[in-house]
Order: sequence, then structure tokens, then C-alpha cells
Amino acid sequence: MQSPLLGLVMGSQSDWETLQAAAEHLEALKIPFEARVVSAHRTPDLLFQYAETAAQRGLTAIIAGAGGAAHLPGMLAAKTVVPVLGVPVPSRHLQGLDSLLSIVQMPKGVPVATFAIGRAGAANAALFAAAMLAPAYPAIAAALAEFRRRQERAVLAATLPPPTLP
Amino acid sequence: MQSPLLGLVMGSQSDWETLQAAAEHLEALKIPFEARVVSAHRTPDLLFQYAETAAQRGLTAIIAGAGGAAHLPGMLAAKTVVPVLGVPVPSRHLQGLDSLLSIVQMPKGVPVATFAIGRAGAANAALFAAAMLAPAYPAIAAALAEFRRRQERAVLAATLPPPTLP
Amino acid sequence: MQSPLLGLVMGSQSDWETLQAAAEHLEALKIPFEARVVSAHRTPDLLFQYAETAAQRGLTAIIAGAGGAAHLPGMLAAKTVVPVLGVPVPSRHLQGLDSLLSIVQMPKGVPVATFAIGRAGAANAALFAAAMLAPAYPAIAAALAEFRRRQERAVLAATLPPPTLP
Amino acid sequence: MQSPLLGLVMGSQSDWETLQAAAEHLEALKIPFEARVVSAHRTPDLLFQYAETAAQRGLTAIIAGAGGAAHLPGMLAAKTVVPVLGVPVPSRHLQGLDSLLSIVQMPKGVPVATFAIGRAGAANAALFAAAMLAPAYPAIAAALAEFRRRQERAVLAATLPPPTLP
Amino acid sequence: MQSPLLGLVMGSQSDWETLQAAAEHLEALKIPFEARVVSAHRTPDLLFQYAETAAQRGLTAIIAGAGGAAHLPGMLAAKTVVPVLGVPVPSRHLQGLDSLLSIVQMPKGVPVATFAIGRAGAANAALFAAAMLAPAYPAIAAALAEFRRRQERAVLAATLPPPTLP
Amino acid sequence: MQSPLLGLVMGSQSDWETLQAAAEHLEALKIPFEARVVSAHRTPDLLFQYAETAAQRGLTAIIAGAGGAAHLPGMLAAKTVVPVLGVPVPSRHLQGLDSLLSIVQMPKGVPVATFAIGRAGAANAALFAAAMLAPAYPAIAAALAEFRRRQERAVLAATLPPPTLP
Amino acid sequence: MQSPLLGLVMGSQSDWETLQAAAEHLEALKIPFEARVVSAHRTPDLLFQYAETAAQRGLTAIIAGAGGAAHLPGMLAAKTVVPVLGVPVPSRHLQGLDSLLSIVQMPKGVPVATFAIGRAGAANAALFAAAMLAPAYPAIAAALAEFRRRQERAVLAATLPPPTLP
Amino acid sequence: MQSPLLGLVMGSQSDWETLQAAAEHLEALKIPFEARVVSAHRTPDLLFQYAETAAQRGLTAIIAGAGGAAHLPGMLAAKTVVPVLGVPVPSRHLQGLDSLLSIVQMPKGVPVATFAIGRAGAANAALFAAAMLAPAYPAIAAALAEFRRRQERAVLAATLPPPTLP
Repeated sequence: MQSPLLGLVMGSQSDWETLQAAAEHLEALKIPFEARVVSAHRTPDLLFQYAETAAQRGLTAIIAGAGGAAHLPGMLAAKTVVPVLGVPVPSRHLQGLDSLLSIVQMPKGVPVATFAIGRAGAANAALFAAAMLAPAYPAIAAALAEFRRRQERAVLAATLPPPTLP
Repeated sequence: MQSPLLGLVMGSQSDWETLQAAAEHLEALKIPFEARVVSAHRTPDLLFQYAETAAQRGLTAIIAGAGGAAHLPGMLAAKTVVPVLGVPVPSRHLQGLDSLLSIVQMPKGVPVATFAIGRAGAANAALFAAAMLAPAYPAIAAALAEFRRRQERAVLAATLPPPTLP
Repeated sequence: MQSPLLGLVMGSQSDWETLQAAAEHLEALKIPFEARVVSAHRTPDLLFQYAETAAQRGLTAIIAGAGGAAHLPGMLAAKTVVPVLGVPVPSRHLQGLDSLLSIVQMPKGVPVATFAIGRAGAANAALFAAAMLAPAYPAIAAALAEFRRRQERAVLAATLPPPTLP
Repeated sequence: MQSPLLGLVMGSQSDWETLQAAAEHLEALKIPFEARVVSAHRTPDLLFQYAETAAQRGLTAIIAGAGGAAHLPGMLAAKTVVPVLGVPVPSRHLQGLDSLLSIVQMPKGVPVATFAIGRAGAANAALFAAAMLAPAYPAIAAALAEFRRRQERAVLAATLPPPTLP
Repeated sequence: MQSPLLGLVMGSQSDWETLQAAAEHLEALKIPFEARVVSAHRTPDLLFQYAETAAQRGLTAIIAGAGGAAHLPGMLAAKTVVPVLGVPVPSRHLQGLDSLLSIVQMPKGVPVATFAIGRAGAANAALFAAAMLAPAYPAIAAALAEFRRRQERAVLAATLPPPTLP
Repeated sequence: MQSPLLGLVMGSQSDWETLQAAAEHLEALKIPFEARVVSAHRTPDLLFQYAETAAQRGLTAIIAGAGGAAHLPGMLAAKTVVPVLGVPVPSRHLQGLDSLLSIVQMPKGVPVATFAIGRAGAANAALFAAAMLAPAYPAIAAALAEFRRRQERAVLAATLPPPTLP
Repeated sequence: MQSPLLGLVMGSQSDWETLQAAAEHLEALKIPFEARVVSAHRTPDLLFQYAETAAQRGLTAIIAGAGGAAHLPGMLAAKTVVPVLGVPVPSRHLQGLDSLLSIVQMPKGVPVATFAIGRAGAANAALFAAAMLAPAYPAIAAALAEFRRRQERAVLAATLPPPTLP
Repeated sequence: MQSPLLGLVMGSQSDWETLQAAAEHLEALKIPFEARVVSAHRTPDLLFQYAETAAQRGLTAIIAGAGGAAHLPGMLAAKTVVPVLGVPVPSRHLQGLDSLLSIVQMPKGVPVATFAIGRAGAANAALFAAAMLAPAYPAIAAALAEFRRRQERAVLAATLPPPTLP
């Protein structure tokens, strides 16, 4: 088994519903990754340890999803220079607007690359990670290019009910 | 010099403009406190060390102010059971709405007591800390009661221009 | 039966769905409390009487939940120096954003410690109350510490479906 | 001097800048009123007393302005059936959106008639009060009708720079 | 049959679900009213005619509900000095925030008294109308006072599950 | 078969649920149109080609619907002077507020005429297109006038449950 | 002097600061127009008369700007089938978000083509009107094409300070 | 002179005030870059050409800033697999909330890594680009590590006015 190039972490098990979209795209692009639950608030020491060892364990990026007062991506970024990709998980009452602002509005000095709220953002974080890896991993570059082509073809093939006017 | 009962921390030196309102009220109520800059993102290790030693150093509460993706109060609360009082610092573009949501929307399990955006919230965090300390510190209880009385009298003494109707 | 240390009040019976999360945590931590419906708008005299007698009845804090134009926490705080912990109850149309702003944006001078919208906030108000009581009540301190440990262990034990890549 | 038909109250002296627009319109319409500072949070007893005596003192409506977590209009309405007209005062950080929601989102059973944020709303509260009084006070009805006519004429007389096209 | 004292109008038949709460309270308070659909955008002439004849037909106030770009209350108020009470109807996508702002943010000179989004606001508009009528209609005053008493008693009688602690 | 006067494009097949309301109104008004999926992000070349050939293919306007970071209407407008009518499609998490702002807030120089979020906006884009075509196409003018008359009659015929008061 | 093809109306004289951007672009494109103040709320009869005579007076579109509870564009559209282009004027407290929602969220059946908040939106309404007129007025088509070319050239000619790296 | 590793593009010359913060950080980290104005709406062909040639010209990432209906980052991402880092430029009326949503809410399939509104976001985009390049460019890795160390030291050295309590 290949050692993982990417870490996929989330604040709670219930975030899997959202982050699964990242996992599916990473698998489709054949990018080895590890996935686990790391809570900024309930397991802060694990968070620090995870971030501190990320580089030496060969991770080239970390995809981190969290909801509400979402501190996981930003705190990972505070503890490592490995690029962190943040995914705002939809929250029960504010629909993820709180998650988005908590992740994207990082102060100058510690960046988190942020993607859309929910599964679209999770998928895009995976695709962005692939684009980051593409220069060094020709197979990933090829898989990503193929993904883009197929997605374009799918739109071109989309059909709508014809107008009923003569 | 008395050892501090409260910690007053903020994410950056520029937050002092807001947090000063807390310091002024603590001083007026004669509550000994320490104040320093602790950045969740730029000095995460200091944050952890500060939180881990808070209880043993005799702090009974921590007032923490931060702006934007404000992670300082929540991460302190993740590392100590000493009560954390969060103050949303106004942000340049979103006026502190991002700060507020990043602080108040904590997930179940790790509370941060949140106050209003800006100087009003900073002052109120200090007053709330005084109310927490009041049962054990009669002098603080008395000072707080006097503050409330004076504030009531100030409103009662407020005058408005009289209507000009006969 | 022990006399209650905490008051748990809510603006209407339908708020129980949210505030129940506070009650459950207080019970789990074995903190004696009383619970009742007190409406700022429909029973203002009861509200005043409740607040005026809170200290002498031995309450050390009041958890108050309300929705929409949520005035209950702030008006309690206006009438007592017993610390008030406010819980924004989700509202039908604005999802609790109105409740949150009505509770947290208190003017300088009368603080309400505010927690997240909904059940997470209610649970956290209970945990915060426990942290306030911990210095004086070793049993509560122990129960809170145990709660935190168990919650940490639960995250550490969380498992995700393994990646399907070889 | 005529006894006042209307009460004009505000949460703090600084709200006068906004509420002055109400006073000016009441004076122009020759409606006798009283004005004073009544803070829901800093003088709750005064608030109750004001509301409880409003009807017997002959007030036919109360215009109440407040900002932030604006509880003054709603709490007055909780204590009297005299109609309460609420004016959201602009707040420093959230521009009065918090004031508006705190006033308008009253629960079923205790209404507050709410007007626009700021001076426009204060002026309109005065005009609305005039319309309420018009059936019983012909002089006010006439003054209001004249106000509307003059305002219409002012718009009709408005001029713009002519286009420079031939 | 008594001639109506109040008009109850709404922008479309589907708004009845919301405005029904006003009708129920008016009936309970025995205030005679008429109800009909008047669309600002689809029947502007009817709107004008309705407003122009409101006073002479004996209407003392108009309760007007509308959703989205809700122009009905404001345009009625533009055409009559009879007081207009606006009820923001929840909208499909923005939950009535658009309705609220379209109704409450009237420019200086033409007031609309605005109430909460949805059925609570509709009920409160009816109660406010009752309070306006109370001085001239003792029966309405009595019915309103009785309504307030019953509502207070209902809260006082509310019961919650008892804590299970000994 | 008549050559189409209007283009109806949408960012993905799932947007049909919204844009169908435009198609239905165009058909009812007997305006020939073409409909297809054109994704700004997944088929940018198709988007450019579509816009570049719109004028020569006889399109007099393009109705374009998209959701989230909705770039389709604006990019079409960047590539053609044929008028573009933008329809914000409701988004999963932010209910179309993101779609609306992404479409309407175009910079000076490249306009997109924007309509309401969702099916109401789609229908209105079709009606607006009809109004644009009316001067040159008397049949469309007549159909539009008839539509407006019928819609007015429908409101006038609306009935509500009668009040139950005697 | 040519008879005007376009009407440019605004709710108050102070809106001219915004709508002037429309006038400037219309003049630059040599499109004859008339401009005047028409207030939905303060001169509703003028509004109706303006809309009712728009078509017979030869207007091919109306650009209407208003702020706050902005009813002018929608009410014009209710009274004429001449296309109405709405411009949200920035409001004092809510920055034009209220204006935008009041204009764009029109119900199904009566469209208003909406543009960006403020001067950018006003300019774009003028450019959109030009695009509508272009098929029938070759001179306008040419002026618009030239405007687009010049605007493109201006961007291409933009220069930035060169990086200082060797 | 080194050939640029990064492209820095913005929608208009006035965005330089924001994007300058990115340029300054790139220069400090000695990362060669090119900067130019590319408008999605006013120079769409240049945008396409820029994106199409980015990879072959050796760009490893593109930092793109835009405001309002900000389509530049998303359209670049649609035309290249070179990673695009989006910076929301503050907008005049909505403070950059529109810019943020227009950039971050990209649909599944075409990612844009988004950073905070304004200069903080621009600086962070530069730092994130450095982190992406670090594995392949040891000098950049060293410069970035040094930047982080210096930033940490600056916080540790921050001083606040000492409390005046004895």
C-alpha cells in the first residue's frame, strides 16, 4: 500500500457526509490519502500532533472540514506549513455561513485555501489538491485532465425537453 | 502586587483598542489581571501553554478577544476548563459579524461565553467576570453593586432638550 | 432534595426542545437546578420577581433561552447581578439569527454571556455553568473533568470507512 | 401647557440624535409630548413604572427607540396596552440590523409597531402616531393632511439638471 | 352585520396561510373586518381605489401582508392617511427577510407600522389594531385586556418535566 | 419551424427545474426559443462560442440561469451585446443569495438584467423578454397584454373565507 | 430636439448622485431621454400617470432608481408593459441591500430588470437600454459597440508597477 | 531576469490597492511573478488567452483578485488546470461579501482556492503559493519558514500598557 500523500481530516464523524465527496474524488484520481476525525476543540492535542508530523509523514496537503465555529483548518495551518485546504461543513441553523466565515477570514500570515460550503467544496478541495500534485505526479495530472474532459463531455451531452412550439 | 485573578488576552496588538474597555472596567472594579497578546494562528504553542497553565497560575477566568476567523477564545477553551469569555473584535470588512460567528457558534462540548462586538462586549466581559467572582470576593461584589447603582443614576439624571411646544 | 444552584428558564414551553439539552447536561453533572417557563413579554412581572429573588434563593447563575426578539436573558441581567447565560433558540423564519443578535448585542453595562444557537448552545451553557461552579464544588469539578475526558476519548475512537485504494 | 399625548423614550442620551427626528415632526404637527431617557437594562424599574402609568397619565402611544439588543420597545409593550411604536437606532458595528430584528421580531401576543432604522423611522413613528390620533383630534388630522400635501408638492417641484442632448 | 372597522388585505391568495392568524385574532376580539386579495403589482388600480376609499368606508386601519418585494403596505400608505399595519409574509427562498426590508424600510414621510415575519406578525398586527381602537371601543378594550390576562395565565400554568435529580 | 428569437441557457441540467418556468411562459406567449445547457465553468469554450454567434443566429436576448458562484450570465454579457437576462437559481446552502449577488453585482460596463431568485425570476425573465420584443412583434405584444389582463382578473376573482362575525 | 426614447426617474432628488451615472452614459451614447423625480410614496398619482402615458409618449424603456423600501420600479412595472430597469440606490444604514431586495424580488407576473447597487448599476441600466434599442437604431448600436471597444482597450492599456525582483 | 512562477492578475487597476499585499509578500519571499490587469467582463478574450497559455509559460499558480460579481478567478480556473487562488476585493456597497460569495461558491468540478476579503487575503494567497512551491524550491521553503518565525517573534515581543493596579 502506498503511503498517503494527503490527509483528510474532519471535526466530527457527522462531517463525513460532506467530506466523503472529497474521498470519492481522491479515490477516482488514485491519490493515496488517509482520513480521520480530528477535533480542534475536543482533541486539541491530537490536532497539534497531527499538524506537527504532517510534513515528515509525507503529506503534501491537508484537506480539513469543519462546521459552525470551524477552527480545525486554521489551527492546522497555524502549526504546519503544509498547505491546508478548508471545507466549510453546513451547520444546522446558519447553513454553513458561520463555517465559511470561520474558515476563510484568516488573518494575514496564516493562509487557509477555502472552498464552497458542503459537498461541492469537498469535491473541489480534492480536485485542487490533485492540481497541486499534478506537476510532480504525471499519473495524477493525466487523471485530472481526463476528469476535466469527461466533465466537459457530460455537459455537452446534456439534453433538455424540446420546446413544444412548432 | 496581587497575583492576577483574570487573564486578558488578544490576538494582536491592534485588538487593544477594543480590549482596553475590559481593562478599564477591571481596574475600576479593582480586579487584578494580566494582559498579553497571544495569537492563535501566529503563536499556537504559546496559546496552548497559556491555557494549560491558567488554572495552576490561579486564573479564574480568561477574557479573550479576536477578530475575523477568531479562533483564540475557542482554542483556549479547548485546552482548559477555566471559563473563557470571548469578545468579538470588529473586523475591517465584515464589521465583526465574522468574529462573532467564529466565537459564539462553538460545537457542543466546549463552551465560550460570548459578548457583544467591540468595546461594549469587552466592557461586559469584564463585568461578567466580576459577577462570577462576586460570591467569593466581597470587595468585588461591592464594587460591582456600586457600578450598577452609579450607572442607573446616570440614566436617571440624563436630560433631553425640552419640547418647544407651549 | 438539594436546593437548586441554577435556574433554567425559557420564554415558552416550545423552547424546551432546545433547553432540554441544558437540563440533560446539568443532570449528568449532578448539578441541582430548577426549570420553568418565564416569558419576558407575557409575564414581565414574573420575570422581575424571578430575577429579584434569584440571589437570595441561592441561584449562582441563570440559564435563559429565548427566540426571535429574545429579551428574557437581557432583562434578567438588568434585574440581578447573578450571572445570566443566554441561549438563542432557533426561530421559525430567521433560524435564530434574530435570537442571537437580540441576546448577544447587549449594551455596555449589563452583560449576558451568550452561547451558540440551539441545542449546542444550551448544552454549552450548562457546561459553562459547571465550570463556574467547579472551584467551589469539587464534585462538579470532577464530573466536568470526566465529561471532557470522555468526550476526547469518543473523538479518538471515531472511525471512518477506510479508503478503498490499495 | 397641554398634558402630553405621547411619550417619546430612548435607551440612552446618545439615541437623541436619532429620536430628535420624531420630536421635530411631533412639534411641527403640534402634538404635545414628553421625552425622556429610559433604559431597559440600566433602569428596568423606571421602565416598568413608566409603562404602568402610561395609560393613566393620558398617553395614547409611546415612541421608543433603542439600539443593539434593543429591548426597550418590547418590554414597554409587555407592561402596557398603550400602543408602542419602535424605532431601531443604528448600532455602531451592525448598522442597526441587530436593533431592527430585536424590535420587530416580537413573539405572538405582544406587538410592537416597528419603523425604519434611524431618523427616517423616527420621523415616521411620529407621523404614524399623528395618523392614530387624527380621528379624535381634528387639528392633528389637518396638520397631517397639510404635511402630506406639502411633501407631495416638494417632490413635484424637484428639478434635475436638464440633459445636455439637443 | 356591522360595517367593518378594519381592512385585511394580502398580495395573493397564498398569503392567507399567514394572514389567517390576523383574522382569527380579530374575530376572537370581535372586531368587524373585511378581508380581500389586493395585489400591488397585478391589480394596482384596485390598490389605489381601495386606499382612496378606505377612510370614507369607515376603516380605521388596514392590515396588509405581502411577501418578497412587498409593495402593498407601502403603496396603501402612500394613498391614504388611514394607518397601515404591514405584515411580512415568509418568502420561498429568503425566508421573509426580503419581505421585512421591503416593508419596514419606508422613506421618511410615509410610515408603515411593521410587525414580525409570518403568523406571529399577523397576529400582532391584529392585537395592535385592537389597542388602537381600545380608547374608543370599550368592548374591544375589555376583550384585549382579557386576552392579555389569559395569555399571562397560560404562561404561568406552563409545566416542564421535573428534573430527575433527587 | 420558426428560428428562435431567444436563447434559454442554464449552467446545469438540474437548473431546468427553475428555468422551466421561463420556457413555459415563452411557449404560452408563442415566442420561439432554443434551450440548452451551457456551463461557464465546465464548458467555457461553448459559452464563448454561444455568445459570439448569438447575434448572427438572430437571437434578440439570452435568458441565462445559474446558481452559486453564477458566472454564466455575466460571461455571456462579456462576449455579446445581445441583452442578457440573468436568473439566480436557488443554491443548496445559501438559498440563492450567492447566486443573486454573483449575477446582479456586475461591474460598470457590462450589464446583466437580473430577476428574482428561482422560478418567479425565470418566469419574469420570459415576460421581460416579451416586453422587449413587443414593439417589433405585434402578436407578442397582444399575447403579453392578454397575459396581464388574465392575471389581473385572476386576482380580482380571488376569494377568501368570509369572516365569521355577524 | 428629439423626443425622448427613455425615461429616467428616481424617488428623490438625492438619488441623482446615483442616477447621474445613467444620464452620463445615455448622453455619451446620444440616446435622448427625459429625467425627473417621481416618488412612489410621496407622489403616487404622478407615478401612475407617468406609467400610464409612457408608451403613448414613445418611451421604449424606463430606468427607475430608488432606495430603502424601493417601490418605484415595481409599481411602474405594474402599470405599464414598457420595460422597467431598476437601479438600487445605496441606503444609509443597510448599504442598499434593502433597496436591492425590494427591487429584484418581484413576484411572478410583473418583471423589473435589476442592476447592481449604486452608480455601477445606474451606468449598466443605461448600457442595457442601449442594447435593447440597438437593433432598431443603428447609431446607438454603433455607439455601444464603440463604447465596448474603448472599454476593452482601456483595460488592455492598464499598467501596474513592475515587480522589483531582478 | 527569472521567468515568473506565478501570475498575479486583477479585474481592474483599482484592485491594485488590495493585490499589492500579495505582490509585497511575493517579493519578500523572492518568488518571481508577473502582474497585470485582466478583466473577465471587459477583456474576456485576454482572460481566455491568459489561462490557456499559463501552463506552457511556466506559471505554477495564478493569484486572481476581483470584486463584486467577481468572475475572474472562476473563469481562469475553467480554462486551465493551473491552480487558481482567488482574492475577494472589497466592494463599495457590500464590503466584499458579494466578492467572497462569487469566488468561493464554485460548483463541483472547477475549484478556486479562496482567501479572506481584502489585503489580508491577498497576502495569504501569496503565502499559500509559497507553501505550494516550497517542496520544489528550497529557497522559497527557507524564506517561508523564516517569515513564519519572524511573525511568531513579533507576536511574542508585543507589549501592552501594564495594568495600573498595584
